[in-house]
Amino acid sequence: MSASRRRFLRSGVTLGGGLLAAPALSGTPTSAPTNETLRTISSLRTIHGDFSDKQIPDADIEQILGATVRAASASAMQSYSIVVVRDPEAQRQICGYRGSCLLLYLLDYTRVLATAKRLGHEYAPANLEAFVTGSTNTILAVQTAVIAAKSLGIDSLLTNGVHRGDMERLWEMLGLPRQYCFPLIALVLGYPAKEPAFQKGRLKGPGIVHRGTFHPLTDEEADAIVGQYDDKALHLGLVEDWDKNGHKHYLDWFHKDWIGRNARPGETQILQRVRQAGFIESAGGRHAIS
Amino acid sequence: MSASRRRFLRSGVTLGGGLLAAPALSGTPTSAPTNETLRTISSLRTIHGDFSDKQIPDADIEQILGATVRAASASAMQSYSIVVVRDPEAQRQICGYRGSCLLLYLLDYTRVLATAKRLGHEYAPANLEAFVTGSTNTILAVQTAVIAAKSLGIDSLLTNGVHRGDMERLWEMLGLPRQYCFPLIALVLGYPAKEPAFQKGRLKGPGIVHRGTFHPLTDEEADAIVGQYDDKALHLGLVEDWDKNGHKHYLDWFHKDWIGRNARPGETQILQRVRQAGFIESAGGRHAIS
Repeated sequence: MSASRRRFLRSGVTLGGGLLAAPALSGTPTSAPTNETLRTISSLRTIHGDFSDKQIPDADIEQILGATVRAASASAMQSYSIVVVRDPEAQRQICGYRGSCLLLYLLDYTRVLATAKRLGHEYAPANLEAFVTGSTNTILAVQTAVIAAKSLGIDSLLTNGVHRGDMERLWEMLGLPRQYCFPLIALVLGYPAKEPAFQKGRLKGPGIVHRGTFHPLTDEEADAIVGQYDDKALHLGLVEDWDKNGHKHYLDWFHKDWIGRNARPGETQILQRVRQAGFIESAGGRHAIS
Repeated sequence: MSASRRRFLRSGVTLGGGLLAAPALSGTPTSAPTNETLRTISSLRTIHGDFSDKQIPDADIEQILGATVRAASASAMQSYSIVVVRDPEAQRQICGYRGSCLLLYLLDYTRVLATAKRLGHEYAPANLEAFVTGSTNTILAVQTAVIAAKSLGIDSLLTNGVHRGDMERLWEMLGLPRQYCFPLIALVLGYPAKEPAFQKGRLKGPGIVHRGTFHPLTDEEADAIVGQYDDKALHLGLVEDWDKNGHKHYLDWFHKDWIGRNARPGETQILQRVRQAGFIESAGGRHAIS
């Protein structure tokens, strides 16, 4: 990971960082993918900002947009919208990275509000339930785009860089609606400048998959996971050089040098923005109804 | 849609309903999918509870679980886990439906907490940002499973039925952790009892895709969307018989008879449960830091 990338990632908020896409499992043996779609999925990987200048054909972008809407959608509402951004500098301002094309996925009820208004209906998705449902619809769509893109030979970076820095820039740059709209994730698409040296691995075993009921990790299972993150052949972690400052375990680096760095008491920008967008209901008035 | 399904859907909360997966676009012409993965995506559809008794082979479930973890994950955290439920009655209690197999996707930081504790680190993903990031990771994984399943000839139903009724049942039935864990969505997998008569359509055009910056709908565009929902050949809506009670437009049915039915002031169960799980931070203490 480049110093500049690491600096950018750290400059933000608690759970920052690009979203690492990648295959190799760890923990349990796997059988090889048995069809083309499974092979596409198993080849998913994240390109961290080092996309080449090769441009994605418009026809491929349209295929990806055609695929993304085919994801499931609660109450058939498609409570999202997508801003397509080709300008490299705009991409960088939006999320800190740039590829050939950026798709900004918005949790967005404003289209539903606009049609309701035309018909004289009052509508306000003014609670966290609407946020959770809308967020789900949005992310189902974005992952469909990721897989569609990969099938066309196009790599991706999913990043919550949109939530780093002052998010106000997104409303100002893109003219986003203030209410019932929230920028959830950026999908940067392109071709890699060079092939990544390896694919990131994934945990798959105790603590990830539960059979029948939830099984809390035993101490032995927890220790085994610590060991898996330490096994550099598995490439499970966010960085490879976690031990350079003397950390004994990858998860020591993760907790000491990464995840807690920007933690602070009080409200996160996310809560403030989600509330401003209208998605945090108040308790008041409840007694008047039930 | 069967009367019993409709009743179940309506018995719950604001944005209830199965999540409709399906292809046919509306609004803009589309080119045909150009590869096997895109064809898999374009064939996605939702089976609403009428799954046959045919069982999914265990090997296919393992392929699906192997695929699901390959989704991207912020900070390589995989902040989710999955409960695999084969028992039909348990499936029904969890989400109101049953197929051959249910995968309950939990936003789940408890594995991260367990390993942190083993190493003596304090860790608490105690804010809405952790919820949004964890939710994103979880839904990226579930949509990967949906597409992997379809490639194996297995249909699906994504449902937020887990959020209907008293959610406490999920903690009691499955032994879920009380903190830093939240059941987000159920993926019911199986084979259809009979082929659906049509594929649901999707909006794709103004209000869904924005080029460069966000473009609010014009009145004309809003009216065009109202018309598209009314065009029964497009199958855009949640039900086909929306006009049977005299509604002039599908969206009249949607707003009068569907979406607002269970709306009530005060806190939703979702907000209460998300807060109980520890994901709503308080403003207090902020001044002590910044």
